[in-house]
Amino acid sequence: MLVVQKYGGTSVGDVERIRNVARRAILARKEGHDVVVVVSAMAGETNRLLKLTSDVSKRPSQREQDVVVSTGEQVTVGLLALAIQEMKGKSRSFLGHQVRILTDSAFANARIRSIDDAKLRESLKKHEIAVVAGFQGIDEHGNITTLGRGGSDTTAVALAAALKADACEIYTDVDGVYTTDPRICDKARKLDRVSYEEMLELASLGSKVLQIRSVEFAMKYKVPLWVKSSFTEDPGTLVTEEDKAMEEVIVSGIALTRDESRFVVRGVPDKPGIAAKVFGALAERGIVVDVIVQTPAHEDGRTDMAFTVGRLDMEKTNELVRKIGKQIGAGKVEHEEGIAKVSIVGVGMRNHAGVAARMFQVLADEGVNIRVISTSEIKISCIIDEKYSELAVRALHTAFGLDKGDVEKS
Amino acid sequence: MLVVQKYGGTSVGDVERIRNVARRAILARKEGHDVVVVVSAMAGETNRLLKLTSDVSKRPSQREQDVVVSTGEQVTVGLLALAIQEMKGKSRSFLGHQVRILTDSAFANARIRSIDDAKLRESLKKHEIAVVAGFQGIDEHGNITTLGRGGSDTTAVALAAALKADACEIYTDVDGVYTTDPRICDKARKLDRVSYEEMLELASLGSKVLQIRSVEFAMKYKVPLWVKSSFTEDPGTLVTEEDKAMEEVIVSGIALTRDESRFVVRGVPDKPGIAAKVFGALAERGIVVDVIVQTPAHEDGRTDMAFTVGRLDMEKTNELVRKIGKQIGAGKVEHEEGIAKVSIVGVGMRNHAGVAARMFQVLADEGVNIRVISTSEIKISCIIDEKYSELAVRALHTAFGLDKGDVEKS
Repeated sequence: MLVVQKYGGTSVGDVERIRNVARRAILARKEGHDVVVVVSAMAGETNRLLKLTSDVSKRPSQREQDVVVSTGEQVTVGLLALAIQEMKGKSRSFLGHQVRILTDSAFANARIRSIDDAKLRESLKKHEIAVVAGFQGIDEHGNITTLGRGGSDTTAVALAAALKADACEIYTDVDGVYTTDPRICDKARKLDRVSYEEMLELASLGSKVLQIRSVEFAMKYKVPLWVKSSFTEDPGTLVTEEDKAMEEVIVSGIALTRDESRFVVRGVPDKPGIAAKVFGALAERGIVVDVIVQTPAHEDGRTDMAFTVGRLDMEKTNELVRKIGKQIGAGKVEHEEGIAKVSIVGVGMRNHAGVAARMFQVLADEGVNIRVISTSEIKISCIIDEKYSELAVRALHTAFGLDKGDVEKS
Repeated sequence: MLVVQKYGGTSVGDVERIRNVARRAILARKEGHDVVVVVSAMAGETNRLLKLTSDVSKRPSQREQDVVVSTGEQVTVGLLALAIQEMKGKSRSFLGHQVRILTDSAFANARIRSIDDAKLRESLKKHEIAVVAGFQGIDEHGNITTLGRGGSDTTAVALAAALKADACEIYTDVDGVYTTDPRICDKARKLDRVSYEEMLELASLGSKVLQIRSVEFAMKYKVPLWVKSSFTEDPGTLVTEEDKAMEEVIVSGIALTRDESRFVVRGVPDKPGIAAKVFGALAERGIVVDVIVQTPAHEDGRTDMAFTVGRLDMEKTNELVRKIGKQIGAGKVEHEEGIAKVSIVGVGMRNHAGVAARMFQVLADEGVNIRVISTSEIKISCIIDEKYSELAVRALHTAFGLDKGDVEKS
């Protein structure tokens, strides 16, 4: 069996933890597997390096920033290979340019184009544990690139796809994917299995367990993905293709995104190109817009457009939207903060009628007013007052049969 | 004019100093020069990284150690390129594998085999200040290598040779090469010029201004080498080919090496292969032997062999030499610590008789007993009691007309 293991920053945070990772990798090797290990920078290291670049330059060039930041993973691979060797294991470290992880040239947020598996295959053939630097690659001109925050997950999944690995194990400081955040709902339950699609929605909704792009990659190449804890022996959660059993469960998880602010632009002319103009301007300023809803046009040919952005972007957004509102001849712009988004996710809801109605009823029963609704095939999101966040999550968790020890499956 | 500038660890020790280096590089660029800058790791960084590797492994593999340690220079090149850009200069960083500084595979102590100048030429053509990581290279298999301590000097000189640079400027925390250590002799004088051969002897004798291999490289490829301070505007010292004027000066500098210990092996059979046996065994254990002298054989066909090693190697050497002494049927082994070596260096002494006699007389006048004498074409070294070190240096400095304000030239 060929296994790709990935360990995040807290799992390699100090010398003792690096030894712990070495032990786990050696154990997998002793069980007869071919083992590739992908590591992140030691916890805190990436931030230390980013601080250095921002001390030197207010708006650092991303090419040079990548040169500096990619050293974090380089240190970890060397140390982990040494730790494995110290325990009598065979090991060799590989940097992005040594494997040859070819990316595009979008510094700080590069995308993997191709991976050459020859050097890793050669290393595995020698029974070495191949230790690969996560997060980094090289573009066609030989420049160092990085994949953006959490990019080591993507490196691991991409390597697993390139090597046709039997499993990709993402080790982190939690022991799997939960039905919801256990800090909010003490009845949260660890999921044994979850589909790629559900995981993708959960990741988009703020679950920090896996980077979105790594899930997309795993789904595209059908890489069986395990989320496990590097500190326990718990089997963790398997992220995989959906099957019959999954479809019987209507809702797999409840997600919560806080710290949003909501905008409504009233009386927007209902003409082609207006939405593009508004959201194009926001994108240009680097503002990430979350939910967007637009109501059907009124009789006067005008419509209301609502959307949410992170609270940190509120001021910038307000200024920009008022300006554009005038240009396009829209009415007044309203905004409010203290907004949260609660979502239910599940592949099963495709085949079940009335899920949305049930969600709205649960919230209504708790006296929670719904401001905006947005749905996808396997997700329903409601924008609510932030103060009701925890209450809403717990009520939905119970109503959809997710509570610990609960056997209800529909 | 094409200039290669090299800045050591203290010159790039913090963000403010990196800005200072950026200013100097931009100034050279504004004067119309093509500028390549080679930098070391920020002061203390290499030691921090070495400590990490030794925390993980008692005897770290040098391949992996190089992976870790080479990140020090990688951080500095990124930061310096950013600092130059922040000051509206054009700049681009290059790692060893990006320039393509090809070395052999002697990890931790690699030697440069070839340098591809295409990428640097391309960068200079765009009027960029090319910032190159010192100390690191890549072997033919794509492994990261390092050149050994002080290797950034070698990187700079090798780049200057490859690019046929008009000058290679080594910036450090002293403003040039001195006739002797100013901390010992307050009449020490900065040299305006010194020959490659003299610099090589001075470097071998413990002057830490330049790494020996960088001087050898400069001599071989006739690279004009400037030693300058990164904190002053002093023109520094030019290391160059010897000329008539230099030959008129008998002695250019006085060097002192402390912390030596001396061994004498008595009654060594005067047969071929004996010296090889003794020093071969020491070399195998990694012991660096400094001065070696052997007296002509006595009437009994036996000889005395004396040599010095660093004090830290004394115990190991003693044990080994006693064992080998028995094997080869030699007499007793004597050793003593508290030994120093004082040397006079100068290309002029080749054409002047009586220099050695004068040196011995000066030492005798001060009551300094000479234990061992060793000479080369442009150097005379005397092993003396360590307690006379400073006295000997000062007396020789004055006697050979090196004192500040002194006009005597022969």
